[in-house]
Amino acid sequence: MPPSDGRSAKQPLLPVAEALARITAPLTAGSSETIPLNDAIGRVLANDLISQLDLPPEPVSSMDGYGVRSSDGVSIGTKLTRIGESAAGHPFVKPVNSGETVRIFTGAIVPPDVDSIILQEDVDAEAEADGAIITINETAIKGKFIRPAGLDTIKGAVVAEAGTKINARVMALALATGHTSVPVYKKPRIGVLSTGDELVLPGEAPALGQVISSNAAYLTAFIAACGGEPVDLGIAADRPGALLEAVRATTIKLDMIVTTGGASVGVHDHIAGDLAQNIDFWKIAMRPGKPLISGAIDDVPLIGLPGNPVSSAVCALVFLRPAIAKLSGRHIAPEPIQGELDCDLPANDQRQDYLRVRLTYRDEDVPLISSAPKQDSSMISVLANADALAIRPPFDPARMAGDPLSLLLFPDGL
Amino acid sequence: MPPSDGRSAKQPLLPVAEALARITAPLTAGSSETIPLNDAIGRVLANDLISQLDLPPEPVSSMDGYGVRSSDGVSIGTKLTRIGESAAGHPFVKPVNSGETVRIFTGAIVPPDVDSIILQEDVDAEAEADGAIITINETAIKGKFIRPAGLDTIKGAVVAEAGTKINARVMALALATGHTSVPVYKKPRIGVLSTGDELVLPGEAPALGQVISSNAAYLTAFIAACGGEPVDLGIAADRPGALLEAVRATTIKLDMIVTTGGASVGVHDHIAGDLAQNIDFWKIAMRPGKPLISGAIDDVPLIGLPGNPVSSAVCALVFLRPAIAKLSGRHIAPEPIQGELDCDLPANDQRQDYLRVRLTYRDEDVPLISSAPKQDSSMISVLANADALAIRPPFDPARMAGDPLSLLLFPDGL
Repeated sequence: MPPSDGRSAKQPLLPVAEALARITAPLTAGSSETIPLNDAIGRVLANDLISQLDLPPEPVSSMDGYGVRSSDGVSIGTKLTRIGESAAGHPFVKPVNSGETVRIFTGAIVPPDVDSIILQEDVDAEAEADGAIITINETAIKGKFIRPAGLDTIKGAVVAEAGTKINARVMALALATGHTSVPVYKKPRIGVLSTGDELVLPGEAPALGQVISSNAAYLTAFIAACGGEPVDLGIAADRPGALLEAVRATTIKLDMIVTTGGASVGVHDHIAGDLAQNIDFWKIAMRPGKPLISGAIDDVPLIGLPGNPVSSAVCALVFLRPAIAKLSGRHIAPEPIQGELDCDLPANDQRQDYLRVRLTYRDEDVPLISSAPKQDSSMISVLANADALAIRPPFDPARMAGDPLSLLLFPDGL
Repeated sequence: MPPSDGRSAKQPLLPVAEALARITAPLTAGSSETIPLNDAIGRVLANDLISQLDLPPEPVSSMDGYGVRSSDGVSIGTKLTRIGESAAGHPFVKPVNSGETVRIFTGAIVPPDVDSIILQEDVDAEAEADGAIITINETAIKGKFIRPAGLDTIKGAVVAEAGTKINARVMALALATGHTSVPVYKKPRIGVLSTGDELVLPGEAPALGQVISSNAAYLTAFIAACGGEPVDLGIAADRPGALLEAVRATTIKLDMIVTTGGASVGVHDHIAGDLAQNIDFWKIAMRPGKPLISGAIDDVPLIGLPGNPVSSAVCALVFLRPAIAKLSGRHIAPEPIQGELDCDLPANDQRQDYLRVRLTYRDEDVPLISSAPKQDSSMISVLANADALAIRPPFDPARMAGDPLSLLLFPDGL
């Protein structure tokens, strides 16, 4: 049954953290696939990444200099004969006997008989040639300027854990430890559906009362940036059953459905009615974003975002991003940072507030927060020009200029 | 001429900020092109983005309720006759006379005669039908729950400035203000060249003294993530002239060249020699990353990164990322945040230090910093598993657990 008249007024507002926990609790990652590392940026490791080799495989010099045997008692005034050189890619493989030294360069293998490097600025070299007499002006210390084999990692060690999102650094590590492909979780497929008779597609001229749809394009880009695969379900009309028809029309197996608009309980809001008994909750103690539906269609979880672009975007950050992360096999915890207010703010009410703010970075490392003067949830221009959301918990007391406030930075691309 | 023996020892170390300023000063954005908005995420606006329409185009209701004329003296007990409804996409276009009211829903146009909305929970409605008598239980306030036309933006206004990097929010704003394509700067083309006889390509089995090349793949992903177009210039051998040959072999017009390895002044480091007089500087007061070359080949600016993967990655973040941003028409300022140390650190020397650290987010919003126990610049595993770089300026005094420290977070994908 559609929600009764009294439902919107009487249901208590759900705290943000509880809503998030209820949305993400049932979600799990799908199956995995093995793909080339070059295509793996942004994907999530499905297994621990195991090093295929010792890194470095042999001891290597960390400086340019001369490899010596510390057992020779090498110190100021010692004279040694240069018998060869070890350069990166060109190892010296013959024995090094007492009284001998090997010219060595950064990254080159240290010959087995050598256990200390004397910097090139700490010797007098007769010539840059084998056979030259090298006079040492420093005391040799065993192990000095030598990176031991396996310093970075050893064969068989876990170098990155399952659930790690692959970035350029992890990719470089995987390559360096002998991999060319990696097992990753498949991208979750997220259906995107707009609702609203007022919507026209970008490129069309809106008639009186119509608006250009931007939420679906936003969510499509959002889902892709979060590592999901967006599936376009189109625009559903404001009538009962339209949502179900649109979702059931696709032949693609969806892992989640996201809708925008129609999430309220007005006469023309039909999402709640279409979901019937499959609604978990629909009112969150947050601003913007109160009318948010969590439910399911045919066992596919659904998040019904508000139709206002700002409410929709904030709810996507707070709920949809962690949901996609969990469907991708990755856990992300909120990582707020702190800023400092540039103005006073009145006490907050029972709703967690996500203010659109600009940030100024000064020498102090703590950004200065300027709250946008207009916070109306219809204002895309304010959202698009914001640097962060400042979070005010329910019943946050009045704040003064200079007080700290938590900040949620927009992830790259979002 | 190749650097003389004395050069490496005697040249003073250049401060990081001065090196960055000298690298980026001569760089400018290239020409622009117009592309569809759907392809524009990550690109940089070449012109100011001008709204093509008022948003909203007409006054709209921000709530579900009843539109009334405040001049009717509407207050508790007033009875009005419902004469129609205005829903999103279905405007009410007839006059509203004294004593009349219009049912109205969120996002619907407010008819011209209406200037106040009474919430649906603040009326007693005889029926949800035209002709019904609506008894008001609230006092009408002019403008209440009405978003005026042009609240978000007006036709002709700048909604995003040239130089803005387009994210999902900016894309949504551009769509909503009537655009389907945008002028953006062309992506700068950055040549990537590795040097080193020890390098083998991923997929090959390294022989004694060889290592699998990961820097080029890292830099390729890095450049793409920063909005540049990477151009593979291959691996140059450790011999004089190899760098110049590799760069001059490409027919692609490059905006910048990035090399890794060979940037030191050892006998087998030839980049400085190849660049001859076209070197600006080559030693920075930073750790990791001292041997860094800034120069040019055939008037194309060149950054010569160190060969160690960690030094290379840190220098890429500190120097290459701002360079690509400037070549892309975008200015990015460093945006450090602050964390709190979990251990004591000794005083720093003359080099700015970029420690690889893990972060723990607690309730306090200020992340707890754990410095990796090994900071060797060859350790890719430590870099890949770090959450941030903690920055210690030259001659930073000893720090105690609990002291604040600046953090450079890794950008998404990097």
